[in-house]
Amino acid sequence: MSIQKINIKQKFTLFDEQWSPKIIAQLNDYHFKIAKIQGEFVWHSHPETDEVFIVIDGEFEMQLRDGNLALGAGEMCVIPGGVEHRPVAERECAILMIEPAGTLNTGDAGGEHTIEELDWL
Amino acid sequence: MSIQKINIKQKFTLFDEQWSPKIIAQLNDYHFKIAKIQGEFVWHSHPETDEVFIVIDGEFEMQLRDGNLALGAGEMCVIPGGVEHRPVAERECAILMIEPAGTLNTGDAGGEHTIEELDWL
Repeated sequence: MSIQKINIKQKFTLFDEQWSPKIIAQLNDYHFKIAKIQGEFVWHSHPETDEVFIVIDGEFEMQLRDGNLALGAGEMCVIPGGVEHRPVAERECAILMIEPAGTLNTGDAGGEHTIEELDWL
Repeated sequence: MSIQKINIKQKFTLFDEQWSPKIIAQLNDYHFKIAKIQGEFVWHSHPETDEVFIVIDGEFEMQLRDGNLALGAGEMCVIPGGVEHRPVAERECAILMIEPAGTLNTGDAGGEHTIEELDWL
């Protein structure tokens, strides 16, 4: 077995699609997923799990029902399970998400943004 | 409940000790821990869990029994459960580790570097 190093920013050069998370690493039953985001996502929550967002490049706003968090590169937040949230990015922003494998990007909301099968990079 | 943003680099300004992980976030039963490392750690493994290392600032070498990985800022690796490893840093390096809460820093090796109770920042 050979353990590889993963260059997070380099992984973002491998795709262009927005709102399409790609898996870059697995830690036990958790996935590390990266995504390019721009515009407004759907309001949703994940009743079964917390979710971590880390900004790799750019900035975005994590909208919450009781206020918004402005996050820039090098900043992170933990969205507790069941808490409604909506990421919004004026300009394209590169993010890393960490959550259990199988967690749907749209959580309990579903809809057109839902991606069931994620690619590995 | 108020969700806070966490500035990862800012957290490193709050302490000086090396090899003394501090918890900065919790995701379900996983902890996000930061540490300043310099010099050679002990060889050890975590039979019960994988472990993620992300370099925030600087560089270090993850020594493995079958070769070494040189990791710089923005790079990460996953050490699978049971795989012996030893972090070595020539100059001080700032790292983020992600692993289940309660995972000991020295794994199955124990010894003077072991820290049982971690502080939150």
